[in-house]
Amino acid sequence: MSLDAVLSRIDSDLPAAMDRLMELLRIPSISTDPAFADACDRAADWLVADLSSLGVKAEKRPTPGHPMVVGHLDGDGPHLLFYGHYDVQPVDPLDLWHRDPFDPQIEDTNKGQVIRGRGASDDKGQLMTFIEACRAWKAVHGSLPCKLTFFLEGEEESGSPSLVPFMKENADELRSDLALICDTGLFESKTPAIVTMLRGLLGEEITITGPDMDLHSGMYGGVAINPIRVLSRVIASLHDDAGRITIPGFYEGVPELSDELEAQWQGLAFDHATFLGDVGLSRPAGEQDRTPLEMIWSRPTCEVNGIWGGYTGDGFKTVLPAKAQAKISFRLVGDQDPLAIRENFRQLVRDMLPEDCEVSFAGHGASKASMTQTDAPSFDAARKALSDEWQVPAAYVGCGGSIPIAGFFQNILETTPMLVGFGKDDDAIHSPNEKYDVESFHKGIRSWARILAALT
Amino acid sequence: MSLDAVLSRIDSDLPAAMDRLMELLRIPSISTDPAFADACDRAADWLVADLSSLGVKAEKRPTPGHPMVVGHLDGDGPHLLFYGHYDVQPVDPLDLWHRDPFDPQIEDTNKGQVIRGRGASDDKGQLMTFIEACRAWKAVHGSLPCKLTFFLEGEEESGSPSLVPFMKENADELRSDLALICDTGLFESKTPAIVTMLRGLLGEEITITGPDMDLHSGMYGGVAINPIRVLSRVIASLHDDAGRITIPGFYEGVPELSDELEAQWQGLAFDHATFLGDVGLSRPAGEQDRTPLEMIWSRPTCEVNGIWGGYTGDGFKTVLPAKAQAKISFRLVGDQDPLAIRENFRQLVRDMLPEDCEVSFAGHGASKASMTQTDAPSFDAARKALSDEWQVPAAYVGCGGSIPIAGFFQNILETTPMLVGFGKDDDAIHSPNEKYDVESFHKGIRSWARILAALT
Repeated sequence: MSLDAVLSRIDSDLPAAMDRLMELLRIPSISTDPAFADACDRAADWLVADLSSLGVKAEKRPTPGHPMVVGHLDGDGPHLLFYGHYDVQPVDPLDLWHRDPFDPQIEDTNKGQVIRGRGASDDKGQLMTFIEACRAWKAVHGSLPCKLTFFLEGEEESGSPSLVPFMKENADELRSDLALICDTGLFESKTPAIVTMLRGLLGEEITITGPDMDLHSGMYGGVAINPIRVLSRVIASLHDDAGRITIPGFYEGVPELSDELEAQWQGLAFDHATFLGDVGLSRPAGEQDRTPLEMIWSRPTCEVNGIWGGYTGDGFKTVLPAKAQAKISFRLVGDQDPLAIRENFRQLVRDMLPEDCEVSFAGHGASKASMTQTDAPSFDAARKALSDEWQVPAAYVGCGGSIPIAGFFQNILETTPMLVGFGKDDDAIHSPNEKYDVESFHKGIRSWARILAALT
Repeated sequence: MSLDAVLSRIDSDLPAAMDRLMELLRIPSISTDPAFADACDRAADWLVADLSSLGVKAEKRPTPGHPMVVGHLDGDGPHLLFYGHYDVQPVDPLDLWHRDPFDPQIEDTNKGQVIRGRGASDDKGQLMTFIEACRAWKAVHGSLPCKLTFFLEGEEESGSPSLVPFMKENADELRSDLALICDTGLFESKTPAIVTMLRGLLGEEITITGPDMDLHSGMYGGVAINPIRVLSRVIASLHDDAGRITIPGFYEGVPELSDELEAQWQGLAFDHATFLGDVGLSRPAGEQDRTPLEMIWSRPTCEVNGIWGGYTGDGFKTVLPAKAQAKISFRLVGDQDPLAIRENFRQLVRDMLPEDCEVSFAGHGASKASMTQTDAPSFDAARKALSDEWQVPAAYVGCGGSIPIAGFFQNILETTPMLVGFGKDDDAIHSPNEKYDVESFHKGIRSWARILAALT
């Protein structure tokens, strides 16, 4: 049977596939930091070359930011699109890494072999699972069982500013029967999962200024307003004691779970003690009247991602700073309107400002949540293919993260997105010492081969 | 008359005196940052050489930190000690400086000539006023009218960790009839002042930790505790809405002003609108039932000097950080006990911590407030000398800053401290673009010559 030959080929080619991934991981394509723009460009070049070696007509397509990689491969059968992103998160705090984030290596751990390095899981390792599945299929059969479009982005970790304009300009070229997206994970590191519910994301950077310049706290302390104190009061006011967010109108459009979904999620028996215990925590810290799975999948959040102001170096400096800053983000669900929430948040901050203080805001992306309808036959087929590979029934799950691309496929291209990925909870994505299990990589490639067979 | 000759000499030698100060300002003696330890050492060497050129038996004396410079000059008359510090504050944020902080220059401004550079006012410019007065006196008369001890510190801006042990070990050598300290300012930039009331200082650095590692706010946001939120709640709780500090027992030992001092301060007609207006503020932000002069001279404070946590670089990173940190300091008055306040502050923080969070503390200096008795004849004499030079009656004032050395002279050496200085409110000490008016430098030197004449 043709699938078996492809799976065998995947098994025997695994060492070479890992070498290819390591090459890609060595390119420090941090999209959010302009200092790494060249590296983003090189990662795109690398992917164009690799896809071209499979016979894909691939090219780097310019945007105002980092380039897109788009490739087409003719074939019989349905038209599938594959999406992944080649950019990665920043690496700070660098001193917490045990090795150079961009000098990846295979490590033996007590949970098996892992590929260690920035982007190993998010998203270079994941996107290569699909490309390697195509490579093996082509090596065995000479051609793929479908028409294929590759669409690889370089700005996913920095808010995807060029994505929507690019999709709109190239809608006819990108529209397809189904969009496969590989940027999610297994459920609890063991159950294959198709994500059907994604939170939206709203990012805000706020700067509160007081005095015109940094002051000496001996001379002015007690009489001058301190912007760090003002910012702290703002942040402290954003949640009430029960963990509920206090921004006026924030919960408009937040739906309750359907009975069916609630039952399915209860069936998953989410082990929140282990989920939190793995990172040194014990108590679910969100809205106290919600389950942990709701907190991360179906409830909105407000988080402070960074804060800074005044003297932060070694030793002590009795400065009364001129300004204080924070990066704050919101995960959104259901029909919450990012732009309305942005405005209400800003108004809340303005209303809290004492005399002599000013605030300025910088917005960083605003995307709604998305939900996928799973009644098409392709979803049942993919679910079965995943169950066969992992020998565990695959689940439809939510995801606390924000992958706006899913909504864009729906709304701009009228193409149904299918989110399948093989990351594990302990991959430390966005953190020091990111890794991707060799098992995720290997079985991920095999999963895609099975899905290609099932969909065509 | 001999004083007139000294004053003339000071006037004619001013350009050379400024050149000498510029040399000292070029040495980046930032004491709080270990990277500048060599520079601190070089500043001490420079002072030893300069004092030696006056015939002072000066030497660099080792401490566990930066060296002390101690020098003696025999002479007839009372034994006076002079204290200043040769170390300076850090220079960040460096991008707000209009030139290299350690490449000082004379600038013409619409308020007259200034010496621009880190340390120009705090405290290199000030300490050189006394040395230059001695130089002129010696040039005219061949010897000084008193026995003199120079005692110059290199750790004043980093909490003076070596000061008390050194003073205790060398008490017999340092004990004198009067300790002159030049590290304060004019009142409202125009009235010569002797500071008789100094606030104490307590520094605390706190680190709140939550998860074991930085987390992805998509995966954990909503269920994991965020240390920045916890820290913000702690900081927001330290003051009530009326500006009063909420730490239990904090106001124990805080005295009310005597009727006499209250009347004297009212007579100063402090122009708080200008004081605040100069730095872009309008409203006194401290305890709302106190006058602005009380807020900065006679009331205790709690300030956040720095805060940091999470991602603070360009762009956005949806991290849920493992920890958040702040530097917090307290200005103390009257009989407030720094160690009791430290303990009560730490207990308040511990009491506010939610489950899964931990806190660690690092203490940065703890000094009580000090008050000087002004009934000795030397104070009247010095006040008259200052009034003669500035043609404005000199005042006894408070000072919001903390100069623990004053208390140490009283308590360790049983030597009365006299604090006289010539800084102006707009000197931007501890801030970018620090300056010292050439007028302060010139008339400061002349003031010391007059004081030497008056005290001997």
